[in-house]
Amino acid sequence: MNINIIEGGVTSPKGFLSSGIHAGIKKDKNKKDLALLVSEKICNAAGVYTKNKVKGAPLLVTKDHLIDNKAQAVIINSGNANTCTGEKGLIAAETMCSLVANSLNYKTEDVLVASTGVIGVQLNVKPIEDSMTSLIDELSPEGSLSSAEAIMTTDTFSKSLAIKFELSGKEVTLGAMAKGSGMIHPNMATMLSFITTDVNISPALLDKALKDTVNISYNRISVDGDTSTNDMVVILSNGLAENTLIDTENEDYLVFVEALKTLNITLAKMIAKDGEGATKLIECTVSNISSEEIGEKLSKSVISSSLVKSAIFGSDANWGRVLCALGYADVDVDLSNIDIFFESAKGTIKVCENAFPVNFSEELAKEILLEKEIKILVDMKSGSHSVTCWGCDLTYDYVKINGDYRS
Amino acid sequence: MNINIIEGGVTSPKGFLSSGIHAGIKKDKNKKDLALLVSEKICNAAGVYTKNKVKGAPLLVTKDHLIDNKAQAVIINSGNANTCTGEKGLIAAETMCSLVANSLNYKTEDVLVASTGVIGVQLNVKPIEDSMTSLIDELSPEGSLSSAEAIMTTDTFSKSLAIKFELSGKEVTLGAMAKGSGMIHPNMATMLSFITTDVNISPALLDKALKDTVNISYNRISVDGDTSTNDMVVILSNGLAENTLIDTENEDYLVFVEALKTLNITLAKMIAKDGEGATKLIECTVSNISSEEIGEKLSKSVISSSLVKSAIFGSDANWGRVLCALGYADVDVDLSNIDIFFESAKGTIKVCENAFPVNFSEELAKEILLEKEIKILVDMKSGSHSVTCWGCDLTYDYVKINGDYRS
Repeated sequence: MNINIIEGGVTSPKGFLSSGIHAGIKKDKNKKDLALLVSEKICNAAGVYTKNKVKGAPLLVTKDHLIDNKAQAVIINSGNANTCTGEKGLIAAETMCSLVANSLNYKTEDVLVASTGVIGVQLNVKPIEDSMTSLIDELSPEGSLSSAEAIMTTDTFSKSLAIKFELSGKEVTLGAMAKGSGMIHPNMATMLSFITTDVNISPALLDKALKDTVNISYNRISVDGDTSTNDMVVILSNGLAENTLIDTENEDYLVFVEALKTLNITLAKMIAKDGEGATKLIECTVSNISSEEIGEKLSKSVISSSLVKSAIFGSDANWGRVLCALGYADVDVDLSNIDIFFESAKGTIKVCENAFPVNFSEELAKEILLEKEIKILVDMKSGSHSVTCWGCDLTYDYVKINGDYRS
Repeated sequence: MNINIIEGGVTSPKGFLSSGIHAGIKKDKNKKDLALLVSEKICNAAGVYTKNKVKGAPLLVTKDHLIDNKAQAVIINSGNANTCTGEKGLIAAETMCSLVANSLNYKTEDVLVASTGVIGVQLNVKPIEDSMTSLIDELSPEGSLSSAEAIMTTDTFSKSLAIKFELSGKEVTLGAMAKGSGMIHPNMATMLSFITTDVNISPALLDKALKDTVNISYNRISVDGDTSTNDMVVILSNGLAENTLIDTENEDYLVFVEALKTLNITLAKMIAKDGEGATKLIECTVSNISSEEIGEKLSKSVISSSLVKSAIFGSDANWGRVLCALGYADVDVDLSNIDIFFESAKGTIKVCENAFPVNFSEELAKEILLEKEIKILVDMKSGSHSVTCWGCDLTYDYVKINGDYRS
């Protein structure tokens, strides 16, 4: 299996065009706030949505438009999440779709919509309507970067990615753009990811592949434990790579899932790394555990702990906090013989053996923890599963971004 | 029912003495680190312990010594939590008890022990042994403040309290000292609370009253979502008030529970308010909800949300984050017709009605939120229960205390 991550984005697969412009939803004219993604050919499509009971209007409209598992375009705005906006909000989201549909002669139900930004404020569609011509004029097979920029909020870098691989000898491509847990006053973090591919695959298997890989990528990151009302991951496949249709869980399907998993985990890590105020990526792998489910709860408990996150920010080899976080995870496990290691590009150090302190070089620990990507390895010695989750450190800037709305 | 909170502490009830000294566990000689609490008469006693699977050695010893529901003394050190210290740690904790027992001619099993501070480092009992004479010499009915100071870690103020009330005409007293979620490098937050009373009550009802009131006080606060390995609440009753023994759930029992509840909630709020780096107490009341259990999950989700905590730090009327936190609480409730209010000494303001924004004065909201005690009121309109939980804001100083170990 040969899976190559390449520079690129949503327009890397055949037949996809995208654009990103400033429409006037954000006040700053230098910031793009409206993106459009289209496929020359109608796509099979699937989506995964936030588990928050409060759901944004665009999410409800997208879910509805995906009932037939078909889509040809996605319109996304940043600067306003169109959430807690009632009937008016649903009309605004539906209008965004119909504006695209009318301009491009698509069916409104084949256009999906996503929004991120302030909630509880009505979204004015006028600037979107007024910008439709230029949004469509800008559509380009080189539009990846522009569209990825237009969906950013407090993200510090745009997130795009593509992967090339082969399915039974045919070269195929996956592309994606995402935005991370960035927040706009007065609002909440949102995670969005849009994936494109020219792979020929049935709607049912596209849906299955998406759900299975989302569960072990985006669903294994945490920035601050808050789950947004607008989180959404959508995948579109137009089949233009002309590979033999994948409609059973054959070898090609497994390769596709592997590539999609790589894509989603890479994006998820980019999102975790770019968490609000974050200076470091934290990766926690719980290994030799009896089940994936238990491993995930343990790992998530570690990467979500404010005390662990603060310790990593301070480059402090505080394994006691890791053990403490494992101890309050809601699972029934024996912690009496676990080992804990810290690891980075500078090396690996064992800090705890059989749940007891070991003597270690404070100097080496410091050197390891001063790196920007920190791994916390927990060996449970009680099974054969291994689970990794990702998070980021807790910093002054997180508080600044989310606490001081004047900043 | 006449329940009066008075100045005082663990020695306010009849027959209790306490002391607090610097023994040398903390490096700073100006900081007390060893406390002793004794009763002239053997007490009925009960305890509640951390739910963390990793439990400190003192906790295991205390639990063991409380099997007969009797105790006469509690020795507590700060500066070292004596956790993850194995067999040696258990011996150290047991030794602390026997040192007190030998000096005072008590049985070792009648002495309880608690520790708070760094974990994973062996506790040296030598300084404790060397200080035993002066610790006992200092025992005094005016020792409340000294002992409360000796159990502090990063707490910014000592926490003591007493309550006077009557049981069938007899004046009785409850006293207590607690420490909050303060952390010592390289370690974790710990909550400790020691309650004394001269009330005459059976061990079974003392235990029941303690558990019932702990569940709606200490168990409803959160500073950072991390549950320590050493949390402990202990109550001692020596019966010296000579009220008629409470051995059924009669009127006197109900009054006692009400007083104990008031004591525990007041202390819990003090702990939340003094959360690491905190500048504000946050109180979230979820009212008109179908059950206590659901209300508690909703309220805890709000006070635990990093985004809500940051918003309150910034005095930002960000009800969207409150709604968001309610939305991801793990309960099945209808959020479509809820109202949200912010309240403080400056007034009350409705910010959300039926889950939609209402127009409100940003100026008044700011004035309300600039106060030090902020209430978030959530009206669920779907039942008759009401639950309150307490937390604190998330500030630069939380990150400083927990992230920068040089500070």
